[in-house]
Amino acid sequence: MPRISEKGKSMPASPIRKLVPYAEEAKRKGRKVYHLNIGQPDIHTPQVALDALKNMQEKVIVYSHSAGNESYRRKLAVYYQKLGINIDHTEIIVTAGGSEAVLFAFMSCMDPGDEVITPEPFYANYNGFATAAGVKIIPVTSKIEDDFALPPISEIEKKISRKTKGIMICNPNNPTGYLYTEDEIRQLREIILKHDLFLFSDEVYREFCYDGEKHFSAMHLEGVEDNVILLDSVSKRYSECGVRIGALITKNKDVLATALKFAQARLSPPGLGQIVAEASVDTPREYFDNVYNEYIARRDFMVEALNKMPGVYCPKPKGAFYSTVKLPVDDTDKFSQWLLEEFEYKNQTVMLAPASGFYSTPGLGRNEVRIAYVLNTDDLSKAMETLAEALKVYPGRTI
Amino acid sequence: MPRISEKGKSMPASPIRKLVPYAEEAKRKGRKVYHLNIGQPDIHTPQVALDALKNMQEKVIVYSHSAGNESYRRKLAVYYQKLGINIDHTEIIVTAGGSEAVLFAFMSCMDPGDEVITPEPFYANYNGFATAAGVKIIPVTSKIEDDFALPPISEIEKKISRKTKGIMICNPNNPTGYLYTEDEIRQLREIILKHDLFLFSDEVYREFCYDGEKHFSAMHLEGVEDNVILLDSVSKRYSECGVRIGALITKNKDVLATALKFAQARLSPPGLGQIVAEASVDTPREYFDNVYNEYIARRDFMVEALNKMPGVYCPKPKGAFYSTVKLPVDDTDKFSQWLLEEFEYKNQTVMLAPASGFYSTPGLGRNEVRIAYVLNTDDLSKAMETLAEALKVYPGRTI
Repeated sequence: MPRISEKGKSMPASPIRKLVPYAEEAKRKGRKVYHLNIGQPDIHTPQVALDALKNMQEKVIVYSHSAGNESYRRKLAVYYQKLGINIDHTEIIVTAGGSEAVLFAFMSCMDPGDEVITPEPFYANYNGFATAAGVKIIPVTSKIEDDFALPPISEIEKKISRKTKGIMICNPNNPTGYLYTEDEIRQLREIILKHDLFLFSDEVYREFCYDGEKHFSAMHLEGVEDNVILLDSVSKRYSECGVRIGALITKNKDVLATALKFAQARLSPPGLGQIVAEASVDTPREYFDNVYNEYIARRDFMVEALNKMPGVYCPKPKGAFYSTVKLPVDDTDKFSQWLLEEFEYKNQTVMLAPASGFYSTPGLGRNEVRIAYVLNTDDLSKAMETLAEALKVYPGRTI
Repeated sequence: MPRISEKGKSMPASPIRKLVPYAEEAKRKGRKVYHLNIGQPDIHTPQVALDALKNMQEKVIVYSHSAGNESYRRKLAVYYQKLGINIDHTEIIVTAGGSEAVLFAFMSCMDPGDEVITPEPFYANYNGFATAAGVKIIPVTSKIEDDFALPPISEIEKKISRKTKGIMICNPNNPTGYLYTEDEIRQLREIILKHDLFLFSDEVYREFCYDGEKHFSAMHLEGVEDNVILLDSVSKRYSECGVRIGALITKNKDVLATALKFAQARLSPPGLGQIVAEASVDTPREYFDNVYNEYIARRDFMVEALNKMPGVYCPKPKGAFYSTVKLPVDDTDKFSQWLLEEFEYKNQTVMLAPASGFYSTPGLGRNEVRIAYVLNTDDLSKAMETLAEALKVYPGRTI
């Protein structure tokens, strides 16, 4: 029997996957499981996007241009221009979700053995794309005491080696909800200029910024146009995760030409998803206002509920719809499994994402979890009540 | 300015891309260009599939399971069972087109530096996936004199090294239209057993077998269940290339578990495409009969027209909708460019795919082109007339 590859062996499994069988078993027992572990919003996809599908007249669903339909890229360019991001449609490659954008960026810019520095905790699937590309993620730890702000530039610089090819950020951040300030992004500008690095900026949560804070994009930086690679997706913006439409955007012509070769090999991004994504650009302002109000209500409710629980600390996130939260338990991997396997309160329980999977420094995140506030406030309220009760009785509690 | 990767530099560009600007220029001049160069059929997508989109009730387009919706995988398993392929839904990973299936298979089974042997000419994008995975494609030449039959097993065995991890075939073949016989597939069984290799079998043209010939799948082989990896796609089967739905199928549990980790990193395959693909499984028999009759008519017309032209040889393909054809010219790269740049007949010209891009042995295929018979017979007739006239006057003709 032929053997799988070493690369395949070293591919990380999702940190949440281990818990899935326990969640399924809990449901089989008739238990209600509140999913605080995933980034799948319950918000409706804009009607204008769903209508575009119904009104589709094509009789043959054909390949699109490998970089995406030109009509979509032109509309997308206008969307960015309105945000003060000066790009045109030739600087966009439409991808199968933000996922493919990250993979194309890694493969276009880095060779096996090269290194990319990123603040941890970070989106766990970066590990998978790094493994696929053979590159190494070098973490620099951001701390819950600082509400996960950018670590000091001096700490980042310490990690730079001969092998370093770039810095990667997710802004607003998954899993912390932290929104990087303009000042922090400008600090990164200095370091990428000084060391001639790429800046990979994953901005898929751009629309989710709260408390009047403005999003400052890496594409707003001047004089580093050839360094910055924007990774984007419509999944969260329009609550259409399943269409699998993202984009790699850069003014660096070599990177564009190279990423296009990867794009051409796989022929085209999803065609139906592009129809939906193109129509979504016309989503009315009102839709976003409603979404904004809904998330603010959920966040405020959740942050208050969590911080009332003894020993719990939840920073107030300024963006996205996650928070990385400190819990008074021995080990959040064990606690999360226990919640599904052994605990119930009024026949309910909750599923959490243990934060250890978002750190690459061993041992970190053991008393943290990522909580996604993607449930309506009714369900969120029941989930918080359940979590509070669980923390009172969990055998491994630390207070 | 940071530099792109060596991997990116070595990514091959599509062999047809060089010709695209010339085709665009010809169209700008008002010339009708017949596209014999691409595998985009003009056949309608089944109505049942288009209706499924119109009838979609979902209000949120959510992520699917990373391996694909279970309902789709269950229907797909029944489709394969009817073909005598004994698999169940847990042995299927739904992918973003056949492209992603090839990439996942290469990355799951091979490490950088490993080798996979494949008959040449072969589908040019295998080169891109091989480069992405860091693996090397070792060609073994199939010959137009043999109508591109499987090269002798002794020739294949000569190519096996310490680094060889698998053999890859495309059956029916793109770019030759050759349909491998049961006997040839059984010969491959012996060699993969003897040398403990994977057999990657790309069968996306399975439904396109002519003259009463039956398709014999690599999955029909017995005793090599852990060696065989089936790569599939609905793109050609239902003329829905744009939905980007394919599948990796194997009974090898290690490969399945590994490919699933790559699938989980990118979250899910296209959701709307899965709705279309699932509905497509119910396409009535009559649809395929019509498609079959249409392609038979096109093929017979084209083969006869080509073989009437002095110095041209077109094998009669038993499958897919391509033929690799010998032309009496000095260099088909030059000829194809000349057709677009300098030639016109009744203000028409044709675009061909030079075969050099389908060979990896330097110098081969210089007097061959791939022709796709994806035009209706009216257009095909005009294209053939135009090509015949071109061959009479091309300055680099060899007869």
